[in-house]
Amino acid sequence: MASDEADVLIIGAGLSGLIAARTVLAAGFTPLILEADTRVGGRILTEDLAGLPMELGAQWIGDTHHRMFALAAELGVETYQQYDEGETSYELAGTGILRGNEFHDRFDDELAELETVLRRLDELSAEVSPATPWTAPHAAEWDAITAGAWYDTQGLSPVARTLLEICTVGILAVPTVEVSFLHLLFTIQTCGVTAELFAESEGGAQTTRFVGGTAEIPQRLAALVTDHLVFDAPVQLIEHGTDSVTAHCRGGRTARGRRVIVALSPMLAGRIMYDPPLSGYRDQLTQRMPNSAAMKAFFVYDEPFWRAEGLNGQLISDIGPARMSNDTCIEGDGHGVILLFLEGEQARTHAHWSEADRREALTTELVRHFGDRAARPLHYIDGEWGNRQWTRGCYNANCGPLVWTTYGPALAEPIGPIHWASTDTATQWSAYMEGAVEAGERAAGEVIAALT
Amino acid sequence: MASDEADVLIIGAGLSGLIAARTVLAAGFTPLILEADTRVGGRILTEDLAGLPMELGAQWIGDTHHRMFALAAELGVETYQQYDEGETSYELAGTGILRGNEFHDRFDDELAELETVLRRLDELSAEVSPATPWTAPHAAEWDAITAGAWYDTQGLSPVARTLLEICTVGILAVPTVEVSFLHLLFTIQTCGVTAELFAESEGGAQTTRFVGGTAEIPQRLAALVTDHLVFDAPVQLIEHGTDSVTAHCRGGRTARGRRVIVALSPMLAGRIMYDPPLSGYRDQLTQRMPNSAAMKAFFVYDEPFWRAEGLNGQLISDIGPARMSNDTCIEGDGHGVILLFLEGEQARTHAHWSEADRREALTTELVRHFGDRAARPLHYIDGEWGNRQWTRGCYNANCGPLVWTTYGPALAEPIGPIHWASTDTATQWSAYMEGAVEAGERAAGEVIAALT
Repeated sequence: MASDEADVLIIGAGLSGLIAARTVLAAGFTPLILEADTRVGGRILTEDLAGLPMELGAQWIGDTHHRMFALAAELGVETYQQYDEGETSYELAGTGILRGNEFHDRFDDELAELETVLRRLDELSAEVSPATPWTAPHAAEWDAITAGAWYDTQGLSPVARTLLEICTVGILAVPTVEVSFLHLLFTIQTCGVTAELFAESEGGAQTTRFVGGTAEIPQRLAALVTDHLVFDAPVQLIEHGTDSVTAHCRGGRTARGRRVIVALSPMLAGRIMYDPPLSGYRDQLTQRMPNSAAMKAFFVYDEPFWRAEGLNGQLISDIGPARMSNDTCIEGDGHGVILLFLEGEQARTHAHWSEADRREALTTELVRHFGDRAARPLHYIDGEWGNRQWTRGCYNANCGPLVWTTYGPALAEPIGPIHWASTDTATQWSAYMEGAVEAGERAAGEVIAALT
Repeated sequence: MASDEADVLIIGAGLSGLIAARTVLAAGFTPLILEADTRVGGRILTEDLAGLPMELGAQWIGDTHHRMFALAAELGVETYQQYDEGETSYELAGTGILRGNEFHDRFDDELAELETVLRRLDELSAEVSPATPWTAPHAAEWDAITAGAWYDTQGLSPVARTLLEICTVGILAVPTVEVSFLHLLFTIQTCGVTAELFAESEGGAQTTRFVGGTAEIPQRLAALVTDHLVFDAPVQLIEHGTDSVTAHCRGGRTARGRRVIVALSPMLAGRIMYDPPLSGYRDQLTQRMPNSAAMKAFFVYDEPFWRAEGLNGQLISDIGPARMSNDTCIEGDGHGVILLFLEGEQARTHAHWSEADRREALTTELVRHFGDRAARPLHYIDGEWGNRQWTRGCYNANCGPLVWTTYGPALAEPIGPIHWASTDTATQWSAYMEGAVEAGERAAGEVIAALT
């Protein structure tokens, strides 16, 4: 059992908190992680489905996720490539279903329009520093409009506008009118360029998977700090002095330390009581970074039958309950696995449905794209994040108009002995696992410097 | 000392909670109010300044605030009229300072433009039901754009656009690009028409004041339920069954009841832990209704010297730390009192300043408009709301794009034995004291019906 005295308290055993704990420990200080849930991983969650690991949360890393590749190697978690052969199945703007080559032929002009906008986004995002987006030359202007409003001014055809919305919502997990244009540019810039962010697989953020499931990463990290980790400890109050903190958990447990790292999304961090209370400046930020809405739904078949048809298992659609899908077969296993993404509006709507109804609606969609065999899965599982008490939304925290320019500096700035982590505070691949590692290391570094 | 058993627990002793308690008590049930602070009133706060009551929070009622007039009469709180004689002092768009008549002569066309937009707002808001704004015929379209973006499409001259922004921010206390256009129309509709909402005094929301200060209202209400009210009881957790609730406060106090009314702004309600946890639908709403930013600053002089100059003490300015001011002399007292409003961006910026610096900046502004005598106040006081731990922003909760159409029904819908109050849930004069009374009565009515 962990001692309730430590040098550094860490709130949350997501990837960011675990990395912070390991880093603190390696520097010779004692961490204590207080986790509200009964598991580690936060927005990483692998569930067993008939012996197969299903990634209800974070699943992939991309070629530039150097911290994650290093971490996987260090922990002995092997990786494999995302399957990416064959054609995508499209249905957009009432065209009926078209295979990739047909779609590209028919909508060559529209795809060129889209490409022009993506290049423009790359150019504009290059002006945004991901550590200080509020300092961009046009920050005030870009933060006063929504990303959706900017998209609407680009003179796009319906097909190009719809594709742009689908690929952006695939990142933000909210409609583009809910976030500021500056926030979109920040998001692109933290990830490099749009090509890395939006690409479904090759070269993008979703190229590589983990043998045994993504949760291997937090679980093996947790094993390294297992003596410094307590579960079922939702923190309700953090009392803090110049060089002391006391965390009070539901149920009466208290823990004391010299510093605390709050490794929760900003909104969840804002739900903790602080004594003395934090400034309105910090507090108002946490009122304005809501978590987005995403669901993942997995169908497991006896084999990946779509591959024989020359399909890659990806669909892109502007009708039906899911906008995108993926072939997420597991290396070394013969089953076919299709993953459908419900993001933003689709996740919000279908979170209210029964699982049976969601499954039925998604099955209908899959049959339309991949044929009758899609109607006969062996297994189904889905997962929604807004209903999870200790997460309350995925993938990330988004900023509406004026949040970055008004409150941005409050996001990661320590307050006395309180430091902030979670991927939402990262400057590279914010909202990804890569960002969680950066944030955990950065917060731990601040604490180690303060205690040394 | 209040018993920790009651029929109805009420979280928060603001106006809404107090009204709910009184209503519950009158119906023969026992309420128990748990108040986090050491005072009643919530966003109503009267501070004594050298013997004069200064309204750091809610101050006025308007002609259609029927519930508030009835309440004041019942409680024996007398009212008096807001002073409204003389000219307003304008400085907009680099014109230098102009008195009202000069300004109206010079900007007759611009004021006509403004009037046209206000009439258009009235027409459009007539299509919005304040109880169900998401059902308006154009709700989806209006909720996908910001109020500021809609204003920008109206082809207004800089002076008209600036005036429109100032008067709207005077209501919302955030820049108009932070709220959806549907939210603006909802706000107008809950209050009747723009003329009632935006008018500085006559016919508007700010015509009438309370003898002794606005806090007389919650204080006299509290006296009626004083045996049912505990202070210093911040609720951290609400456990709820079908017909039972237990509220756990910081420090270990618990209270049990059959129903609970959470009379807090939606964001603060979202910071409480619930067991079982609330749905993602309700939770995501509370992540998306941040409180806005407002400060009030009062200068007290030996006499209202501006009146002799034919001025009404109102300034409207697009430079300087305050956009608006008011003559808020107290009936029966000879002092001159000027109140400056810092709202939205101005409140956010100046909340970081020292009180001395704010006072100096505001003094400079007053001198420019009202002359040298303004430099010699007898007293000064100001108050900011984001820093107040148990309020975290004034005047109200605002909805950004898509909040109403995505999550609106979750705002006031009870969840098991949990009912929601606070002015932010009202359908008439939401965000005003009038709305707080409506919400408290509505929530109490739900509870009484459930228990009867």
